[in-house]
Amino acid sequence: MTDNQHQYSEQQRAAIYQVIGERRDMRHFINKPIDEAIMQRLFKVAHQAPSVGYMQPWRIIRIKTPQLRNDIYQLVDAERIKTAEALAERQQQFMRLKVEGINDCAELLVMALMDEREPHVFGRRTMPEMDLASVSCAIQNMWLAARAEGIGMGWVSLFEPDDLAELLTMPKGAKAVAILCLGHVKEFYPAPMLAMENWRQQQPLEQFIFNDQWGQTD
Amino acid sequence: MTDNQHQYSEQQRAAIYQVIGERRDMRHFINKPIDEAIMQRLFKVAHQAPSVGYMQPWRIIRIKTPQLRNDIYQLVDAERIKTAEALAERQQQFMRLKVEGINDCAELLVMALMDEREPHVFGRRTMPEMDLASVSCAIQNMWLAARAEGIGMGWVSLFEPDDLAELLTMPKGAKAVAILCLGHVKEFYPAPMLAMENWRQQQPLEQFIFNDQWGQTD
Repeated sequence: MTDNQHQYSEQQRAAIYQVIGERRDMRHFINKPIDEAIMQRLFKVAHQAPSVGYMQPWRIIRIKTPQLRNDIYQLVDAERIKTAEALAERQQQFMRLKVEGINDCAELLVMALMDEREPHVFGRRTMPEMDLASVSCAIQNMWLAARAEGIGMGWVSLFEPDDLAELLTMPKGAKAVAILCLGHVKEFYPAPMLAMENWRQQQPLEQFIFNDQWGQTD
Repeated sequence: MTDNQHQYSEQQRAAIYQVIGERRDMRHFINKPIDEAIMQRLFKVAHQAPSVGYMQPWRIIRIKTPQLRNDIYQLVDAERIKTAEALAERQQQFMRLKVEGINDCAELLVMALMDEREPHVFGRRTMPEMDLASVSCAIQNMWLAARAEGIGMGWVSLFEPDDLAELLTMPKGAKAVAILCLGHVKEFYPAPMLAMENWRQQQPLEQFIFNDQWGQTD
């Protein structure tokens, strides 16, 4: 029983919980274009995200030319090798993972922080990184809407941001935070791919919730 | 017409788009407790968020004692004054805004990045801040689910993180990224409060989407 007039219906809430639970970070795509109407809906939900001081710091670059897509792939692959080396004893396991779908996805986007963010002090005087938090919320909105549309999305952060900025002629102060791969999929992973591949398992939630003081779980 | 078996039904998609559009950063709450079952659902959706390398860097501190809540309020109010001073000519306008609901909300949470994040190199070698991106996605999940439950949520980032860490006995390396106020509301703002208060308006989305190169909008 609820007396809360603002609560959504049971069916609506079920859809929202379902999409949150079924969203996956996808790296496997099938060769089929995405309707432009869907892309426009995804851009719209990104723009409906919360932002610190309403600064709306997100910028989206759609990668259209095959040469540019290939340049981005090369950049990611170079970082993949460097990451593997940095992982030391897990290097071999990491190298067997599929960590991106840049060459297979229908749509390749780069999400970036705008330049000239310094004047936006509201909520950022001591926490300047809140601009990234806002862009991340925009990406999560896109991720959920994409899942509901039956479109897979993957967030790739294996890149050297200065190199990517140069490739996309980004102005000083702007910074790419995500390479997003979007496409139709044969199937959505039934669980996070990194869990399925035994990279890491879900940790028990109850260990993450504290009362009043750090580490206090009772 | 769609031949995509993974696409959700029209009703389900409508619910998801609705909640994305109706989510608000709330600062006004009414005095009514939140069902614990709802809180548990919100924690669960946080834990279903994507995370870089599946590191699950989010930690949640539930503030239970009134004294601690008041200490946090004092800390936020001190930063509110400092922010106002930093805003120079917009100082008076800022001071008239309600920027938090710490003393009015039913549940006060602090979301933090865990300590010992350095070993998590996957997706973070060049982009260490992706841990914050993951926590932000967790918060966005909570925000959307809370809206569907008819619960308002506000993200406050007006605080000195070192002071908050000390208050909550956080270990070295851990960092608070959000003070979250949750509670029932009389009504959800029909538009972002900062737009309604003429702090800033929504910018035209089409100016934020570029093709291949930064700034190229055609």
